Amino acid sequence: MSLIVQKFGGTSVGDIARIEQVADKVARFRADGHDIVVVVSAMSGETNRLIALAQDIQERPDPREMDVLVSTGEQVTTALLSMALIKRGVKARSYNGSQVKILTDNAHTKARIREIDDANMRRDLAQGSVVVVAGFQGVDENGNITTLGRGGSDTTAVALAAALKADECQIYTDVDGVYTTDPRVVDGARRLEKITFEEMLEMASMGSKVLQIRAVEFAGKYNVPLRVLHSFEEGPGTLITMEDDGVMEMPTIAGIAFNRDEAKLTIAGVPDTPGVAYKILGPVGEANIEVDVIVQNVSHDNTADFTFTVSRSDLPRAEEVLRSVCEKLGAREVTSNNKIAKVSVVGVGMRSHAGVASQMFAALGEENINILMITTSEIKISVIIEERFLELAVRTLHSSFGLEKDPSKEGSA
Amino acid sequence: MSLIVQKFGGTSVGDIARIEQVADKVARFRADGHDIVVVVSAMSGETNRLIALAQDIQERPDPREMDVLVSTGEQVTTALLSMALIKRGVKARSYNGSQVKILTDNAHTKARIREIDDANMRRDLAQGSVVVVAGFQGVDENGNITTLGRGGSDTTAVALAAALKADECQIYTDVDGVYTTDPRVVDGARRLEKITFEEMLEMASMGSKVLQIRAVEFAGKYNVPLRVLHSFEEGPGTLITMEDDGVMEMPTIAGIAFNRDEAKLTIAGVPDTPGVAYKILGPVGEANIEVDVIVQNVSHDNTADFTFTVSRSDLPRAEEVLRSVCEKLGAREVTSNNKIAKVSVVGVGMRSHAGVASQMFAALGEENINILMITTSEIKISVIIEERFLELAVRTLHSSFGLEKDPSKEGSA
Repeated sequence: MSLIVQKFGGTSVGDIARIEQVADKVARFRADGHDIVVVVSAMSGETNRLIALAQDIQERPDPREMDVLVSTGEQVTTALLSMALIKRGVKARSYNGSQVKILTDNAHTKARIREIDDANMRRDLAQGSVVVVAGFQGVDENGNITTLGRGGSDTTAVALAAALKADECQIYTDVDGVYTTDPRVVDGARRLEKITFEEMLEMASMGSKVLQIRAVEFAGKYNVPLRVLHSFEEGPGTLITMEDDGVMEMPTIAGIAFNRDEAKLTIAGVPDTPGVAYKILGPVGEANIEVDVIVQNVSHDNTADFTFTVSRSDLPRAEEVLRSVCEKLGAREVTSNNKIAKVSVVGVGMRSHAGVASQMFAALGEENINILMITTSEIKISVIIEERFLELAVRTLHSSFGLEKDPSKEGSA
Repeated sequence: MSLIVQKFGGTSVGDIARIEQVADKVARFRADGHDIVVVVSAMSGETNRLIALAQDIQERPDPREMDVLVSTGEQVTTALLSMALIKRGVKARSYNGSQVKILTDNAHTKARIREIDDANMRRDLAQGSVVVVAGFQGVDENGNITTLGRGGSDTTAVALAAALKADECQIYTDVDGVYTTDPRVVDGARRLEKITFEEMLEMASMGSKVLQIRAVEFAGKYNVPLRVLHSFEEGPGTLITMEDDGVMEMPTIAGIAFNRDEAKLTIAGVPDTPGVAYKILGPVGEANIEVDVIVQNVSHDNTADFTFTVSRSDLPRAEEVLRSVCEKLGAREVTSNNKIAKVSVVGVGMRSHAGVASQMFAALGEENINILMITTSEIKISVIIEERFLELAVRTLHSSFGLEKDPSKEGSA
């Protein structure tokens, strides 16, 4: 018998028929003897409906009241799911964020969880009840309703699992797990049985929208085993967990991630003096523009070329900021390109395997794909390439690193 | 400067345009220097939408979860109205029942208020904020969300006014006050400037749907001056208050109330022995059927005829119960009639004025309206008549008691 936290998103509880399906699933787990805490989002469309009401009043409504408003969406789902469970003879009780209680800071619409009181949940679990908790919301120390920001229900689930020391936190979604790469791009893309938190973070930050980055960070920090599963199809999903040195060697590469939402800016002919990177990126940061890959080349005439990437939607503003920086520093020119994309190979195994980078560059070179920028981390190598080569690059790398084969099965063959 | 509690029902906050109108009204009161607590219902249609969701799951959903579900309706309105006030530069803060907090018993879906904590509201009022409270809901001593039952928002408003010792509790509705009788039946029906709690109770219990009976009782018990006003038209409305002996004599009759939802049952030939009334009405009460007017006649052969009225929807069940009672008691027969109605003259003045009853019976007699049953209280005389005479009876009595004339203006003329 395990203690399992299960999270169902808006689509999984989008109408009464789906809520009934979720209740069937939860009831089965309960019948198997598990203790269950369910975290639910608002029914799909509901949060948007509430936001639209508020914006009929004002474009930027009061944040405290915004939280009071949108938090009702999840509360509705908790009540409906509890009713559906009770109808099946399963004891169930709903909780909103303040009833749990999930204590947060007072940063309305983007609050952070500080502490979770597990007393009420433990009492109900001990009495055989399924505990149904409203995701995405909490309460500050003055009793004001707060929300964690969109997608915050994943974070709620992980935080509850951490507080309860749950055996597993299951995130039910519309995909059946985490894949070696996007199956829409590579036919041979394969569901991973297992992936580490770090790999998942790198995959998630690259646009793999299966899980909220924040929830993965949280799970990694508190070592909560996280499993991604399909809401309405059976299957083991993908387990996201700590690196597991003992049992078997992790495969070198877990997957190929990519992101089209990239644009690059170059400021050329910058006087190569200490502190110049800050003089360039400082104003960009102040304009609330997030910078991704950064590369600096020293050229022969004691000036540097400085290149970085931003989201495409930030490009016009970033260019504006950079032109004013260019003038101030007496640099030569600002150029930009939004027809680029980023491709990454991700895997904790590359820590101990030399040659991943060279294999990557060789594979891309064979296909005549020009690399515009390179950036590396401990478990990831990313390259910026022209967007038109993106699909080709992903397929090439997926095949080059043998990702269509299941390494665990290979070993046992 | 006064402290005023204002309550707006579902129609008054039915869409964003109306919420904006309510915000205008509240802002004007605030600009006049009043401290304002606003109680709101769910936007019209919202409670029904939520109930329909629940009933898609189960006809009688779990009561605790039902309260969790429907209480979100009022919470949404509090947030939207607070936003609209803040947009107008008026400080405002929303509160749900648990945040106030409004402590109730744990009778889910029909809870009773036990205690109201006024600390948070007083702090906000002192800081110049309008306090916007979700009507209809509270919290039990274990932190479970409760609701007061439909129409409970009036009760919330009166309870808050009592707790805060407010100068006035204003109930905004779709009528501009309490009338001497239904204006749809009598052209000359006149808005009352003032009516006593007791008179209002008698009028309300007779189907005058302006106010919840429970709210009037509450207001009377705690002597909260209650005013009924139109949400979107200007005017003084009707003040419901304590009997005011000192200032001026109350008019004899305040109004003519009536109710079509009446059916009568007669059990004839009941052996006239002590305790027989209980033997008849006991089983009816146990079947959860409410009985209104009761009349017992002794006939010449030492048996009695026992007649009482119930709501029309309860008639079939009541008949069934009564037939079994008839058999047990060896009574002669059970007959019923659902083409009847009740007409009442109501007024605290009749306490000290003899002859109201005879004037009433004389007026009805002149029009050849046969009286089927009579029942009286300190401030009310009711007769049961055939339904087809109802309009004629109401018009006749309205004119006979001179209600189309304003007694206060008459005095000053």
